[in-house]
Amino acid sequence: MRALNVRSSPVRDLLALVSRPEVISFAGGLPAPELFDVDGLRAAFDRAVSRRTLQYAPTEGDPDLRASIAARLTGRGLPTDAGQLLVTSGSQQALTLIATALLEPGAVVAVEEPTYLAALQCLGLAGARLVPVAGDEHGLVPESLAEVVERSKPELLYLVPTFANPTGRTLPAARRAAIADLASRHGFWVVEDDPYGELRYAGEAVPTLASFGDRVLHVGSFSKVGAPGLRLGWLRAPADLLRALVVVKQAADLHTSTIDQAAAATYLAETDLDAHVATLCREYGVRRDAMLAALPGTLPAGSTWTTPDGGMFVWAGLPGDVDAAVVLERALKHDVAFVPGGPFFATTPDHSTLRLSFTTNTPERIAEGMTRLSAAFG
Amino acid sequence: MRALNVRSSPVRDLLALVSRPEVISFAGGLPAPELFDVDGLRAAFDRAVSRRTLQYAPTEGDPDLRASIAARLTGRGLPTDAGQLLVTSGSQQALTLIATALLEPGAVVAVEEPTYLAALQCLGLAGARLVPVAGDEHGLVPESLAEVVERSKPELLYLVPTFANPTGRTLPAARRAAIADLASRHGFWVVEDDPYGELRYAGEAVPTLASFGDRVLHVGSFSKVGAPGLRLGWLRAPADLLRALVVVKQAADLHTSTIDQAAAATYLAETDLDAHVATLCREYGVRRDAMLAALPGTLPAGSTWTTPDGGMFVWAGLPGDVDAAVVLERALKHDVAFVPGGPFFATTPDHSTLRLSFTTNTPERIAEGMTRLSAAFG
Repeated sequence: MRALNVRSSPVRDLLALVSRPEVISFAGGLPAPELFDVDGLRAAFDRAVSRRTLQYAPTEGDPDLRASIAARLTGRGLPTDAGQLLVTSGSQQALTLIATALLEPGAVVAVEEPTYLAALQCLGLAGARLVPVAGDEHGLVPESLAEVVERSKPELLYLVPTFANPTGRTLPAARRAAIADLASRHGFWVVEDDPYGELRYAGEAVPTLASFGDRVLHVGSFSKVGAPGLRLGWLRAPADLLRALVVVKQAADLHTSTIDQAAAATYLAETDLDAHVATLCREYGVRRDAMLAALPGTLPAGSTWTTPDGGMFVWAGLPGDVDAAVVLERALKHDVAFVPGGPFFATTPDHSTLRLSFTTNTPERIAEGMTRLSAAFG
Repeated sequence: MRALNVRSSPVRDLLALVSRPEVISFAGGLPAPELFDVDGLRAAFDRAVSRRTLQYAPTEGDPDLRASIAARLTGRGLPTDAGQLLVTSGSQQALTLIATALLEPGAVVAVEEPTYLAALQCLGLAGARLVPVAGDEHGLVPESLAEVVERSKPELLYLVPTFANPTGRTLPAARRAAIADLASRHGFWVVEDDPYGELRYAGEAVPTLASFGDRVLHVGSFSKVGAPGLRLGWLRAPADLLRALVVVKQAADLHTSTIDQAAAATYLAETDLDAHVATLCREYGVRRDAMLAALPGTLPAGSTWTTPDGGMFVWAGLPGDVDAAVVLERALKHDVAFVPGGPFFATTPDHSTLRLSFTTNTPERIAEGMTRLSAAFG
């Protein structure tokens, strides 16, 4: 029996702590609900419900939705044909399908350090042996990856190259090229998890990692630019691997909700998503600025933090021998929450780190939350 | 690299053959789309779309939906609390979650013979070693299970006890009690896959297998009584195991579509589902009768077939050394399709068997399709 080996997720346990309504939470990676296009999506569902969309559907996904996603990726500089795409039940499912299709128990997987903890969990459930790759202020360091490849021969590298979770960092184009080149030469796969790529508030767009080489599986999501409640993601892969992933997807859930896919396809056909994303970027940019402006007066002297050009997260480090989990307990007494950084590390956690999300709350609530947080350090 | 070991599903390949509109297909297990409550479900989606239902949600599922499902199961004689339920992305996902949570590669899983082939596929992907259990005209034979338990010590038994896929057979109460007793005494889990249990056209209801013992995981679905396009299923399990399954579900896709769950909860609250199921049963019963009436004039002399009291399928055996896959090739030339029975066997296929679904087509189309099928034998 395996069940006893399955551990609960740290994020899950933490989120249980912050469900009190009086808590200002910087913990979750939640989009701002007041920015959801509720009317547009309701109209899309209204038009999408039909005898066809209530029936079973092909595992690969709705043809119109795949075509729309392919066009958006192509427009972002990643030439994509609908036939290269598999629609998934959120991008989280894409990670699990990749792990199931590619990894035998004990397979070595290299991961950016720190990285998205639900990816660590999903790779762990697949029985992978995780090997961290060092990063700096620009993200994963290719030389460190080269050493890991030499020493541990990973079959897969997982990373969030653009506005990373949890660090907010973005990998420069030259490093992307170097990683894609390593993957081609050594024959490992790269998973480019890209839920935040379109949420840029400063600086210039960087080409997707997948545009630098054909060993890169590009994973995207409707959750941050549309709405997470539909659980829609996608996966771009070479034809051979896509066939295997479709078989794994069929065993996992036959296919993603026909009606949600049709509603998203209708929405993408009838809405100017670029205009909606521009609105999100304007507002999220203001929220990011509110958090960055408050940080010097909030965290203790000697703290460090990232200045993300987009996405949802600021990553901070506390000075000295401070455990962010202990700070969280104090913070919760002041009705404010964040995520301690330890669980984002694959092997050796740095307990002095923490993640702050700036998208869910208004600038005013962010200011109030940061004042409460400073009291937790007081 | 594991990808090359993943094989395509036989059903998938077959369905590709029958997509021509002129083909009358008895192959798929599809509900009749003209019986979908399109207006009721459209109204439910219209009411369900909100800022809350477009957001991320708890992994366990929508509280209202869980309460509705618990009440329905309780009403069917299986006392259930909402806290015992996990909402899944279709009941197919429930099977994969169970396999991931419970099975190490190489684990022994006993399966009814023949059985649902996407379950065989999903258990195969989990690395299970499948051991078939013999059945007769009343379904799985407990004495055969006792021998398999003695000999192979399975960790899990998978079966569809009511209106089985593919045979249409229903396991009598005494056999259910015997199986639940074996499971309790030997400490293995039983998966009762029950997508068809409410679709009864003749005979008396039989209590669920789960009502006979606490080693039974009960898996249900909205696909056959509501609509499959929403991809909604559920899983009833003891508290300890449910916790592990929730962690596995979180890694798989975080949670099932918030909006689809809310629409189903709204629909169940505002609709008389029992009345809708009664309509389905009346119409499907007529279709079953149309197929049963045509069978003696369709299949060659010496053929056998089941007479299901409900569900979607008739299972037939051809006389002599006939391969149903070869018959299918001839049938497709006559624009009629079915599923050859071989892939439904875990180990040694009986190629003289075939499955006919009677729910998707009207009685008139069934009569026409059976005439075409008889020509394939001509």
